[in-house]
Amino acid sequence: MRYELYYWAGIQGRGEFVRLALEQAGAEYVDVARQAGGETAMMRLLDGAGAEQLPFAPPFLKAGELIIAQTANILLHLGTHHGLAPADEAGRLWAHQLQLTIADFVDEAHDTHHPIASSLYYQDQRQEAMLRAADFLKSRAPKYLGYFERVLERNPAGPAHLVGAELTYPDLSLFQLVAGMRYAFPRAMARLELKHPRLLGLHDRVAALPRIAAYLASDRRIAFNEHGIFRHYPELDSEAQPKVTGNGDS
Amino acid sequence: MRYELYYWAGIQGRGEFVRLALEQAGAEYVDVARQAGGETAMMRLLDGAGAEQLPFAPPFLKAGELIIAQTANILLHLGTHHGLAPADEAGRLWAHQLQLTIADFVDEAHDTHHPIASSLYYQDQRQEAMLRAADFLKSRAPKYLGYFERVLERNPAGPAHLVGAELTYPDLSLFQLVAGMRYAFPRAMARLELKHPRLLGLHDRVAALPRIAAYLASDRRIAFNEHGIFRHYPELDSEAQPKVTGNGDS
Repeated sequence: MRYELYYWAGIQGRGEFVRLALEQAGAEYVDVARQAGGETAMMRLLDGAGAEQLPFAPPFLKAGELIIAQTANILLHLGTHHGLAPADEAGRLWAHQLQLTIADFVDEAHDTHHPIASSLYYQDQRQEAMLRAADFLKSRAPKYLGYFERVLERNPAGPAHLVGAELTYPDLSLFQLVAGMRYAFPRAMARLELKHPRLLGLHDRVAALPRIAAYLASDRRIAFNEHGIFRHYPELDSEAQPKVTGNGDS
Repeated sequence: MRYELYYWAGIQGRGEFVRLALEQAGAEYVDVARQAGGETAMMRLLDGAGAEQLPFAPPFLKAGELIIAQTANILLHLGTHHGLAPADEAGRLWAHQLQLTIADFVDEAHDTHHPIASSLYYQDQRQEAMLRAADFLKSRAPKYLGYFERVLERNPAGPAHLVGAELTYPDLSLFQLVAGMRYAFPRAMARLELKHPRLLGLHDRVAALPRIAAYLASDRRIAFNEHGIFRHYPELDSEAQPKVTGNGDS
């Protein structure tokens, strides 16, 4: 079966977590929106052409008759069918829990540049973005990265993977998270990385997996850019902490 | 087996989606943080006392030896074990996809009052909150509510439930979403409800389920308040649309 991945052409975004799983699985897939006429086809499915089970937003994956949306849900499915998830129930839940925590982090990384509205340009919410990014780099990113470092540290099978002794889909996603943070916040990450050796080890191991290495070197891997989730705006990657001024009634 | 639910005492929050499933399942459970010493016990588990599989944040559920975190993941587990999810794979994925979309909506509802930082008081981000809430009520809430209305409309088994002909866990969560929106944004919801009759029908049917009705009338149901996800701040529920001013470089 050839999978069809539907996601915005031109960005890694949330689709990248799915691409990494498809690539590591060695699955046959077409990145529909990157084909001629593909984005129109995607919009037709989003508008619900003929479907009973509508996706709310990309990414979504067509797997035979199934249309599966929500990144973590797609990975739940791919993980089970391609040996990228534990076989037992407890392991499957633990892997999915980690994936959902990665998804929360991704949402917060996105909101650093869009704290007010996704529908507005970054430039129209830049002041608010500087406030949100400062809190993100000071409190949220260290909390999440520290969490994943501890999960690796406590894995009874060793810190090579998040879950047990084998590669699972959250390992691939955590690689992407580190890569995205390095792109978006190089100054802050240079500082944060010092405290998270196991996380960096995982990043490097995933990057060196033969199929992932081949993918990253191919033109299937879209470069990070300022339309995706992880964007590099130097003013958001500052050491200085802008202060929220409040409005006088606190 | 008696489940142990760990969530902040005093708020519905994300824990409420789990409580509704436990109540409808007729499961035996203890709401740990509401017991004497319970919040200390919760913090000990969050700090990772003895556990290999750390939760990142509440809610989490102790089910025998398992500790399951992430609301949607807990519901995935409870749904399977208590007849609140479809038995087939396609149905299970569809139910989970809907739950993850509800989770996204809940995140956005939260960020209407905390667009800059969860660690700051509302009063210290009220101006930004007014901008974010205006966009939420104008664009995001109508998009999500319209989506769920269409899902109900297209259910081949009829609009009584989201998935097939039986009650599943996302039905319970969608009830809570409508209840929360009514509490937080009564003016906006009075307007929005007119366009979503199937959604309101679902809300009313869930509220009338004998076990849910008994729960809602009990003191186990915490009242909505201004510490949870859905908060009523009249200034955020305005018809007027404050304008983002930008900073001159767009």
